Amino acid sequence: MIYIIGIGPGGTKRMTLEAIEALRASDIIVGYKPYLSYVSEYIKDKETFSTGMTGEIERCKKALELEKAGNIVSVISTGDAGQYGMAGPILELMDEGTEYKVIPGVSAQYSAASELGAPIMHDVATISLSDLLTPYDLIMNRVRLASEGDFVISLYNPRSKSRVHHLEEAISIIRKYRDDNTPVGIVKNSGRDDTKITLTTIDSIDYEKIDMMTIVIVGNSKSYIKNDIMITPRGYENK
Amino acid sequence: MIYIIGIGPGGTKRMTLEAIEALRASDIIVGYKPYLSYVSEYIKDKETFSTGMTGEIERCKKALELEKAGNIVSVISTGDAGQYGMAGPILELMDEGTEYKVIPGVSAQYSAASELGAPIMHDVATISLSDLLTPYDLIMNRVRLASEGDFVISLYNPRSKSRVHHLEEAISIIRKYRDDNTPVGIVKNSGRDDTKITLTTIDSIDYEKIDMMTIVIVGNSKSYIKNDIMITPRGYENK
Repeated sequence: MIYIIGIGPGGTKRMTLEAIEALRASDIIVGYKPYLSYVSEYIKDKETFSTGMTGEIERCKKALELEKAGNIVSVISTGDAGQYGMAGPILELMDEGTEYKVIPGVSAQYSAASELGAPIMHDVATISLSDLLTPYDLIMNRVRLASEGDFVISLYNPRSKSRVHHLEEAISIIRKYRDDNTPVGIVKNSGRDDTKITLTTIDSIDYEKIDMMTIVIVGNSKSYIKNDIMITPRGYENK
Repeated sequence: MIYIIGIGPGGTKRMTLEAIEALRASDIIVGYKPYLSYVSEYIKDKETFSTGMTGEIERCKKALELEKAGNIVSVISTGDAGQYGMAGPILELMDEGTEYKVIPGVSAQYSAASELGAPIMHDVATISLSDLLTPYDLIMNRVRLASEGDFVISLYNPRSKSRVHHLEEAISIIRKYRDDNTPVGIVKNSGRDDTKITLTTIDSIDYEKIDMMTIVIVGNSKSYIKNDIMITPRGYENK
């Protein structure tokens, strides 16, 4: 049996009962090392296997191997396992007939949204700005189309040391369709002890403060900030 | 204090510890009646206030009134409270200085995705087909732009008794951009005891089976079905 678990954004309070039960039922926990520490209280007596950040495929193969050898294995992702997480690679590599269960979690975008107020109340386009596995032009085309459609835009992996200009490029595209005072919510380390929340507007983003642990949520044309809360109205026009 | 809680898709197993703690700490629980039953084990001795499905604004006002009177109030939504849930209306109506906390939950789309495999592994456009609060043309324009951008498309509120043709119209737009064999995952009552999962292709959808309790996930051009599992690859091109 292999459990593919979304543990939520990091703090154990945002884990589900189902995730905790699966961890407790497992023989071996596989995950990126810092993520194992987030669930440490539930896996004290368990064997673990971890690799570095880019070792996803190695972790998947090891997890499937351990399962084949008769172990109950949990593979953990932060946020939801099915959005940019481990569910895809595991299921892609898995042999027919392997017993598995994907256990959904609170995704980084909804966790970040809850800390900003209610910025994702309406239709949203969720886009990763990492071009490690996606052509750059496709990413920017999606940003353009999402802007044209007045979607709330939720950006994952907005900025890394080797990818400093993607976010600025994406924002410059969005600005062709949105006012300068469009609200932008920036949340670093959502759901953790050191969460950092910034509310700003699309013309005033401090790019230097944004990294891979940050979610950037750009409002739609109706979004506004009131009393330091970012809100996208549920109703698009007044009834 | 007012807690605005996403209780997850319905089964208590997909609730977070944070949501359970907030319910336990509350004096009064406000929610749509069937949703109160999902959390009944945590609110046995609590006062409750409920209205019918379309009584959201009445519930919001009542919750804020109860909070002003000195109660700790929890307002519950299924899925995540911040996506088409109660977080928006509450925060829109709330007076400055009211103590509040939005508690994120496992959203319906990620719960449904977990039951299908890993259909939302890549960029996704999340769109509600209800035109109760959104102009019909804007909804269909978003469907068109999401199709053009090769987003995975996750459809909420796909079909109701008074809205039987929206989904067919949306699918006919998507089909202009995607192959006939594009995978479509349909999940009714995700996360509950009576979950019903259908895997099909975009040219073979049985519309009669789809209702308001259903999430429809249309794959992107790379999505596929393998051993009854719907997968959208994480990598867009082979590295």
